[in-house]
Amino acid sequence: MNHSSVWSDAMQARIADALVEHAPVGGATEAHLRAVITDTAARPGKLFRARLVLATTTAHGINDSIGLPLATAVEYFHVASLLFDDLPCMDNATTRRGQPCPHHVHGEATSILAALAFINRAYALIGFALLDQPALMRLKAQACLDACLGSSGLVGGQARDLRFASSDRSPREVTRVAMAKTGAMISLGLLLPALLTAPSQAEMRALESLCLYWTLALQGLDDLHDVLATSFRAGKTTGRDRALVRPNLAVVLGVPQARARILRLLGQAERKVGHLVNLTPAWSYLLEFQSHLAANATPVTSQRAALAA
Amino acid sequence: MNHSSVWSDAMQARIADALVEHAPVGGATEAHLRAVITDTAARPGKLFRARLVLATTTAHGINDSIGLPLATAVEYFHVASLLFDDLPCMDNATTRRGQPCPHHVHGEATSILAALAFINRAYALIGFALLDQPALMRLKAQACLDACLGSSGLVGGQARDLRFASSDRSPREVTRVAMAKTGAMISLGLLLPALLTAPSQAEMRALESLCLYWTLALQGLDDLHDVLATSFRAGKTTGRDRALVRPNLAVVLGVPQARARILRLLGQAERKVGHLVNLTPAWSYLLEFQSHLAANATPVTSQRAALAA
Repeated sequence: MNHSSVWSDAMQARIADALVEHAPVGGATEAHLRAVITDTAARPGKLFRARLVLATTTAHGINDSIGLPLATAVEYFHVASLLFDDLPCMDNATTRRGQPCPHHVHGEATSILAALAFINRAYALIGFALLDQPALMRLKAQACLDACLGSSGLVGGQARDLRFASSDRSPREVTRVAMAKTGAMISLGLLLPALLTAPSQAEMRALESLCLYWTLALQGLDDLHDVLATSFRAGKTTGRDRALVRPNLAVVLGVPQARARILRLLGQAERKVGHLVNLTPAWSYLLEFQSHLAANATPVTSQRAALAA
Repeated sequence: MNHSSVWSDAMQARIADALVEHAPVGGATEAHLRAVITDTAARPGKLFRARLVLATTTAHGINDSIGLPLATAVEYFHVASLLFDDLPCMDNATTRRGQPCPHHVHGEATSILAALAFINRAYALIGFALLDQPALMRLKAQACLDACLGSSGLVGGQARDLRFASSDRSPREVTRVAMAKTGAMISLGLLLPALLTAPSQAEMRALESLCLYWTLALQGLDDLHDVLATSFRAGKTTGRDRALVRPNLAVVLGVPQARARILRLLGQAERKVGHLVNLTPAWSYLLEFQSHLAANATPVTSQRAALAA
């Protein structure tokens, strides 16, 4: 699969270039705002969501002039959410991607404004990318954005996340928060570009299920990391979920049960990808994401988990 | 002009209803987030910008099914900017519209999330409203939103605003901030709906000039209010510009000069409105906004100013 692998350096470089190219800075941008925006744009993470977008459009023969801006937009929404999440009034994180959080260097206000600039630019990129799409497709895309990012998605999930201590602290509430927060970005990464491929109802249903399994597996892995890893290793502030009484699957279920649940979810996701490939071979690139998730899961679902359990 | 006056109670009620109807809350919205969103949506200000949108679409025979969502969206962008501006890391305000700021009641994080929910819903409303417009019109609308709200507009202006103390503190910098911050919302209120009216180049140029004059007059008036009014009268935290070293025309120019400048700007705006009405009579509703601005200016540009000077 290396010819156009979604995990190739080439794919990384193309998205990284687009993140810098479309960054919302201009000639007159205030220096601190510019610094947060350009530093954030120039220091991408694993780009899971952006790769998902670009792989989806590429696999379905959709031009990069649409795919790359869409991928960039989804990544901008993601980095904006990280900038907000790290604020003192939210998760009060000190490091992100191995660096001090921008609000520690340039102040909270500038971090907030940078996040807003990314969100604004993301909407513009999506608007431009979908300009020539039929009205019905644009309607579905708008609805997807509204559902994923608003009170029923990312924003609503973060609100529940912050009030988790005063909830029933159940595995159900943990799942609910994960679906709203993590699920929003996975859905944007997979469902938004999938709308451009004119999927059948069966494909759309399967894609939605896949989003569910991936979301819960990814969030479960993140939760395990938070419990097991050190700040140094993760490159971001960890171990905070328990300290801040935040929803964490490994905290509410215990590490062994969380581990089992993640493995079960990965299995369900794997079968769903197989089903999609059977429906339409173009979805076979999803196998790469599935393998990647499974490979990433191994360290925390096996050795470390066993040590910690 | 009372039959369909832009300052009528009927216009106020229609927009107020739409603000509540489209508010970004759902059945599962977390209680604090819901409270900030519904309280904010239910307590509208003067709705200058939203009235401008709806008056523009109405005057040009554009259906309310487009005009009202657009007006609501522009007001949502405005209230989001107020929620952010009032945060401790920004203007650190304590009251807004005669009430304690939401971050004092429900916390900073919830205020931020509510603002994001409003922004997200605003983009959705605009997307839905423009669904059947030609691609070129949607392109211009996207560009208008990007320019008004991003680093070159609202966000960039707020960044300069917060760093005003370390700028040259010149009248030019004050104007620059006003154009980016206040200008963004005036432009969204006037230019965004004007795009739907297929304006001639001459009309567009005149509308852009009018935005400039109104913006600088409005911001100048706000600055004078900040210097002259008490918190009680203004219904929001005032007198802070000097304390926080924020851009304020009346501080950098002195009250008499600021007053003269505002009067000059109002004169320029009045002539521009006259020019627009000459070009196309449909723009005559702008006279009402012009009269309203001039009437609102009188108290601070005459008696109070004379007392304070």
